[in-house]
Amino acid sequence: MITTIEELRRWSRQQHNLQKKIGLVPTMGALHDGHLSLVKTANQCCNAVLVSIFVNPTQFGVNEDFHQYPRPLEDDLRLLQTVGSPEVFVPNTAEMYPAGFDVSVHVGGVSQPFEGQIRPAHFDGVATIVLKLFLASGADTAFFGQKDFQQVCVVRKMVDDLNIPVEIVVCPTIREPDGLAMSSRNKYLSKSQRLQAVVLSQSLTLAEKMITDEKIRDVETVRQKIRSKIETVPDIKIDYIGIVDPKTLHELTTINSDTVILIAAKIGTTRLIDNVLITTTS
Amino acid sequence: MITTIEELRRWSRQQHNLQKKIGLVPTMGALHDGHLSLVKTANQCCNAVLVSIFVNPTQFGVNEDFHQYPRPLEDDLRLLQTVGSPEVFVPNTAEMYPAGFDVSVHVGGVSQPFEGQIRPAHFDGVATIVLKLFLASGADTAFFGQKDFQQVCVVRKMVDDLNIPVEIVVCPTIREPDGLAMSSRNKYLSKSQRLQAVVLSQSLTLAEKMITDEKIRDVETVRQKIRSKIETVPDIKIDYIGIVDPKTLHELTTINSDTVILIAAKIGTTRLIDNVLITTTS
Repeated sequence: MITTIEELRRWSRQQHNLQKKIGLVPTMGALHDGHLSLVKTANQCCNAVLVSIFVNPTQFGVNEDFHQYPRPLEDDLRLLQTVGSPEVFVPNTAEMYPAGFDVSVHVGGVSQPFEGQIRPAHFDGVATIVLKLFLASGADTAFFGQKDFQQVCVVRKMVDDLNIPVEIVVCPTIREPDGLAMSSRNKYLSKSQRLQAVVLSQSLTLAEKMITDEKIRDVETVRQKIRSKIETVPDIKIDYIGIVDPKTLHELTTINSDTVILIAAKIGTTRLIDNVLITTTS
Repeated sequence: MITTIEELRRWSRQQHNLQKKIGLVPTMGALHDGHLSLVKTANQCCNAVLVSIFVNPTQFGVNEDFHQYPRPLEDDLRLLQTVGSPEVFVPNTAEMYPAGFDVSVHVGGVSQPFEGQIRPAHFDGVATIVLKLFLASGADTAFFGQKDFQQVCVVRKMVDDLNIPVEIVVCPTIREPDGLAMSSRNKYLSKSQRLQAVVLSQSLTLAEKMITDEKIRDVETVRQKIRSKIETVPDIKIDYIGIVDPKTLHELTTINSDTVILIAAKIGTTRLIDNVLITTTS
């Protein structure tokens, strides 16, 4: 287990000297099958796989769940042994943000709507820590889950615009048997909330069917369907239902090409997101 | 001559495959002996030297001299032949900032006073383009002139805080025989302004003598001396005289340790900066 950036650089140089390709899976720990699927994909593409576990304070808002975010490190390390024991980087906060730290990366455009509107400093925090992890690890490839669709857009934009020599691989969302997207935050849900939460993925499946089977092209009709499905559960508060271009995240009025539907909702105090990417042949 | 990032990456990979160490000298062209001394130093440290020539629009304010900034590319290439013909990267603006570009790097702290106050977006522009050049070139070491002292502080802070794997080497300011710090902007000066401009470096030499020979420790006494020296030339308007800690750029009241004196002034419409670093043994 590597805990300092200096050790990480040494490890990285060694791997590159051995002509190995470094694959990075950045995580905040509390690992689940979604994370493990990223590691498995990394194992296929890269011969030196690194999992970082760091609950990044700068991507949490002041009233968000930074302090209660789960940190089951022992469990995480045990789980990683089941997927080939990748190298693990577990820095503490002072290692990533030493006293006087004062640099930030801002991505415009795709970071502005949806999560960016509700969590104003979130994506600056994400971009900054992801860049630091890329540069400290010397990653050749980095693996992200489609579950955090907007985050992937922000990271891709940063990579393109800053000429970062890292390839981004996006892996499918992994779901519970009933369809709920896996998330470390699912642990916050009570038993009854957990049962209710499935309506999120169900609403996306409904929307997907409307578009691909029923050929419905009007965005508001689809959005209304999603909303009324979610609203069958009284305790869920919808943050947004975005039906957008997957590249720009601009809202569509008619579905004529590839579309992503992004949703966020609160069940009690737990905020969950999900999305579905729909490839149409208009 | 390389003009695209794709070619640059190919060149960079080749050099690293040959186990060569890449030294980057980032410039805006209009090369003078100051730049050439950076290349000479790079030649000593690195066996693959790259000079970038790019007048970076994002570091100029709206009323600054972006459009009139000199671009004597033929002369620049000829000068570079006199210092070992380094590889040259000359991208156009669309190559560095393609349509839709929307990422910026912000460095706090050292970027705030002095140039940061007078040129509000300047250092965000500098940090962003320097990071892009580092990442696109795969530079191992980068060479900057002490002439742009605050810029060096900003770049160092960015490198430290973002864990950028590039070593920064700072080379001494190169001066005209009369002491004027070499600058591409000296070309803007009329003959009489050129004669007057020497007062800037003269005022710094005076200040340095006060501190090292006369052991004067009171900052205001030194600042007043610099001001009255510069004000012997009626056409010069002082922007600032900073007497500061070289690491933090915080203003000092007493000179007890290493000190840098930063000055900026306008002669007509031409803005010049200069500085002197003074090592004291209190």
